[in-house]
Amino acid sequence: MENGTKGTLQIFRDKIKQIKSYEEALGVLNWDLRTGAPKKGVEQRSEAIGVLSEAAFRLSTSDEMGELLDALGADGNKEQLHAIDRKLVEETKKDYDRNKKIPPKLYQEYVVLTSQAESYWEEAKENSDYAGFQPYLEKIIDYTNRFIDLWGAKATRYDTLLDLYEPEMTTAELDRVFGGLREKLVSLAAAVAASPHQPDRSFLGQTYDKEAQKKFSLFILEQMGYDFSSGRLDESVHPFATGLSPGDVRITTRYLPDDVTSALFGTIHEGGHALYEQNIMPELIGTTLCTGTSMGIHESQSRFWENVIGRSRPFWQQYFGELRKLFPGQLDVDVDDFYRAINTVEPSLIRIEADELTYNLHIIIRYEMEKAIFNDGVKAADLPELWNEKYRSYLGIAPRSDKEGVLQDVHWSGGAFGYFPSYSLGNMYAAQFADTLVKELPELWTQIGRGELLPTKQWLTDRIYRYGKLETPAEIVRRVTGKPLDPSYLVTYLETKYKDIYKL
Amino acid sequence: MENGTKGTLQIFRDKIKQIKSYEEALGVLNWDLRTGAPKKGVEQRSEAIGVLSEAAFRLSTSDEMGELLDALGADGNKEQLHAIDRKLVEETKKDYDRNKKIPPKLYQEYVVLTSQAESYWEEAKENSDYAGFQPYLEKIIDYTNRFIDLWGAKATRYDTLLDLYEPEMTTAELDRVFGGLREKLVSLAAAVAASPHQPDRSFLGQTYDKEAQKKFSLFILEQMGYDFSSGRLDESVHPFATGLSPGDVRITTRYLPDDVTSALFGTIHEGGHALYEQNIMPELIGTTLCTGTSMGIHESQSRFWENVIGRSRPFWQQYFGELRKLFPGQLDVDVDDFYRAINTVEPSLIRIEADELTYNLHIIIRYEMEKAIFNDGVKAADLPELWNEKYRSYLGIAPRSDKEGVLQDVHWSGGAFGYFPSYSLGNMYAAQFADTLVKELPELWTQIGRGELLPTKQWLTDRIYRYGKLETPAEIVRRVTGKPLDPSYLVTYLETKYKDIYKL
Repeated sequence: MENGTKGTLQIFRDKIKQIKSYEEALGVLNWDLRTGAPKKGVEQRSEAIGVLSEAAFRLSTSDEMGELLDALGADGNKEQLHAIDRKLVEETKKDYDRNKKIPPKLYQEYVVLTSQAESYWEEAKENSDYAGFQPYLEKIIDYTNRFIDLWGAKATRYDTLLDLYEPEMTTAELDRVFGGLREKLVSLAAAVAASPHQPDRSFLGQTYDKEAQKKFSLFILEQMGYDFSSGRLDESVHPFATGLSPGDVRITTRYLPDDVTSALFGTIHEGGHALYEQNIMPELIGTTLCTGTSMGIHESQSRFWENVIGRSRPFWQQYFGELRKLFPGQLDVDVDDFYRAINTVEPSLIRIEADELTYNLHIIIRYEMEKAIFNDGVKAADLPELWNEKYRSYLGIAPRSDKEGVLQDVHWSGGAFGYFPSYSLGNMYAAQFADTLVKELPELWTQIGRGELLPTKQWLTDRIYRYGKLETPAEIVRRVTGKPLDPSYLVTYLETKYKDIYKL
Repeated sequence: MENGTKGTLQIFRDKIKQIKSYEEALGVLNWDLRTGAPKKGVEQRSEAIGVLSEAAFRLSTSDEMGELLDALGADGNKEQLHAIDRKLVEETKKDYDRNKKIPPKLYQEYVVLTSQAESYWEEAKENSDYAGFQPYLEKIIDYTNRFIDLWGAKATRYDTLLDLYEPEMTTAELDRVFGGLREKLVSLAAAVAASPHQPDRSFLGQTYDKEAQKKFSLFILEQMGYDFSSGRLDESVHPFATGLSPGDVRITTRYLPDDVTSALFGTIHEGGHALYEQNIMPELIGTTLCTGTSMGIHESQSRFWENVIGRSRPFWQQYFGELRKLFPGQLDVDVDDFYRAINTVEPSLIRIEADELTYNLHIIIRYEMEKAIFNDGVKAADLPELWNEKYRSYLGIAPRSDKEGVLQDVHWSGGAFGYFPSYSLGNMYAAQFADTLVKELPELWTQIGRGELLPTKQWLTDRIYRYGKLETPAEIVRRVTGKPLDPSYLVTYLETKYKDIYKL
């Protein structure tokens, strides 16, 4: 490598380290806000977050950064870079170009708009007042359309948004995979609903002591191989995971006194996110590649642990005894009753309360609506009706109010169009990875049934976790499973599982 | 005000807001490190802290800041500024000038040296190996002397260091006040030691349940008027208070199972620091004036609450019943036994374990030693002998090893020469403030005896807390008490109290 390039690389790596440091600081400030910061300090805290975010943005869009990226990306130099540095340059360049295209003033207006809209949304949801929220939503859609114009439309306008959360994902691809999924799930859900063999889940809603729930959460994380010297478990209203660095990956959960499943599966879900972030290869530490590669792949890990493992029969054959020890009065049932209860399928109106099967229909509805907004110009005024129609058609039920309909999710008020598909992509990736995992570790379910979860964690580390953001989602899926994304794995997984549970 | 000055002021205030935001972020990062951050994340965290500290330093020493300060500080402009802005310009200018005089490279070397020295000190202390630490201490003294040369020596070289922690404090002033204190305290301590009426404090060292200790800590903070919606209480190895903004002032304490006084007085002490920071006037929020004015005045508040109030007889006449309810087995004594036990005086070797009376002698020893180093050129090699001599002479006891002698404190390994006097200044300020307080609130002790602590908090807020950094320590003392700092208030307070307790 030329001495000049070496010096340039050093300066570039130093800038990346700075950006990563701001990300770590912002991560801690946000974690702190959500886990117990005093409420009277929130206003000043928001100021501090604003100042640091702006400084990080300025670092990543500075002229100096532009020159470094040009120099390192130039033919002749690029080829001399180590693969990690080359990817780092590419990814940074992508962000740089994207951010440079938005005039700072326009972006500032958008930030103010979405932060206001989020509190108006909260109020509108509370009062089921869509008309009150509609003007804000219209503006957010309008700004998003201007961003798409500035960034440039990909194959379709909505593709530009998808790429923000799932790099290189397209509408064509989602139409293909969701198309293969929707019909099958609608008919499977209908068959399940018609089955006379409905599980009894009432015992899950008794009173469950919080300290005992916490004890089990800690126990199960430790079983999964979550490293407590690189993390901690706290409480928050909405559970989340935050990876500051592989040595500091924090998760939160929520203990409900009248629903033992909330903390149980919330903890395992966030634990899955955390295993991903704790096990990224050391070479990426301190760089912006040291994180999960996309929202979809991240969600595949949380959902793999929560659903594929955590709602499996072998898992509870091992762990139900432990749980019953903590709640002998409430769990006076046998393991199969418990297994069926935690896998109850029921068409419902609220996404975040949906079961593993119908959840995907909630997502497909949102995907189709977002596509209609950005590719077909459907107006905000028409969204509630469209929403209700789709719920009737796919789930057979319709909201009685917009509160449990189009107003239920926070995403749009924050401008996060293109995010929803990640959740179902996660489910599809998870099922496809699981298929390969079972082929490569034929002992998998025997091990799980003995409480040996670490070989699974190791396999995921070797195949997925360690690579961080070095590969795109599509590259990972193809390398790990030998095939592109295929929704039939999820269909087969769900059909097999639920035909058994509902004796279809 | 001229339009030009108005615009300049706006830009200046915006820079200050940025600096304050970095301070808040760094405050949270450090608080988090000390209250439970995962240990494997410490290395990356240190990187982030380094990056943010450097960015804040660059903001405060930028050429742009220099120009803003020159413009706002110029004759004709300065007079047009509001008092708060004028003070803000003065204080920022003082920091700017101080920081500008140190070449960045020299400062970097110093930061690396002191951060290494701190871990070498820990090891040296553990092994009582002064020789192992001496080379580092020599270097730190050397760097400090170079800083004094660059900053310029005030009346004496040590004065330049004192000013860092207690603005405008001088060696001449400390010689005067410590001179008035030392002799009196040495003879009072001797009389106390010779008294046949020694309190029995053995019952304080029984087993005290941690949860019950915590309950009392929370209770007593609430009694003091600590605002829990603007703060929180956590645990850490070394208790501390950190004021991020008046809406977010956090404290920590430490619960020892075999010493109920540790959390008790640690909590009240940090609570005193916190009341100061929670009650600064809103006009200062978001500026660098929104903090206590000096280490000494800060310490006066923690020590006022801990000792003057928290170790007083009326306080425990009210609260001992509450404490005994939590520990009925351990505290089967009467309130006067308890009062005498928590006020036991005993010459000892370790500063942080010292009682209210002899504590000041520990400080005077350190003050005299630091003065000897920087004003008389005493060498690091001679410090252990000098230390032991002074302990023999002032406290009548001498360390058996350097671990319980010259190596006991962390301060010098971090380069904090000039800090120690703050502790005794705090005691002297506290006694002098208390004298005025009793004159202005003649009901004080009756109120305390009824558990009415809020009038005291209000008086301190009106006289001291609200002003933040708007006034110097000397200005505050003179405005509140009508007199300059006078050590005789502390002497009178201690003599009155301990002659009673020890029946002298």
